[in-house]
Amino acid sequence: MSSRYPVGPTETERCIESLLAVFQRYAGKDGSNCTLSKQEFKSFMNTELASFTKNQKDPGVIDRMMKKLDMNSDGQLDFSEFLNLIGGLAVACHCQAMSSPTDGSHKRL
Amino acid sequence: MSSRYPVGPTETERCIESLLAVFQRYAGKDGSNCTLSKQEFKSFMNTELASFTKNQKDPGVIDRMMKKLDMNSDGQLDFSEFLNLIGGLAVACHCQAMSSPTDGSHKRL
Repeated sequence: MSSRYPVGPTETERCIESLLAVFQRYAGKDGSNCTLSKQEFKSFMNTELASFTKNQKDPGVIDRMMKKLDMNSDGQLDFSEFLNLIGGLAVACHCQAMSSPTDGSHKRL
Repeated sequence: MSSRYPVGPTETERCIESLLAVFQRYAGKDGSNCTLSKQEFKSFMNTELASFTKNQKDPGVIDRMMKKLDMNSDGQLDFSEFLNLIGGLAVACHCQAMSSPTDGSHKRL
């Protein structure tokens, strides 16, 4: 770490590294380790975003999200496609925070 | 934190919250606190991504990045436009890591 960041990584750099590390951790479970299969995506969603998935009553929601994110319809999510999910969730949180400025919190997932 | 995350936030949730917090920190410096002005963007780049900017010999690179990211050409970056930068950087790091698998590192900024 120290050679790349003489004074340590910034918050933004840590985020970028974390997103890469999370993607690679789940993508490496089966098949190609450069993409998330549907099974890997489910594992990611049910572990990393469990606070979202546990409130979903519709069992097909993860399948539909996968289909929507899979821009080239190859049945796999590459890193760019995966980032669209992260970006979409962050934008949703941001909009929620902006629309409820009186709740005293600017960070809500 | 504990009420939203009974077992603490996951790495992905922490990233999403951090990205929101960083954006809001810089967006709140002047003018609208929902967007980054050019000055705020420069401040963000020179602080959060200094390891990138300090190697740039071209003084116009931040201006050009701002123009490229500013999809609706309103002279401001909203959160979605800001995320395109984060996503772009993460994809660039990911591609770099994928193209040099022998260096023993999967995380490079």
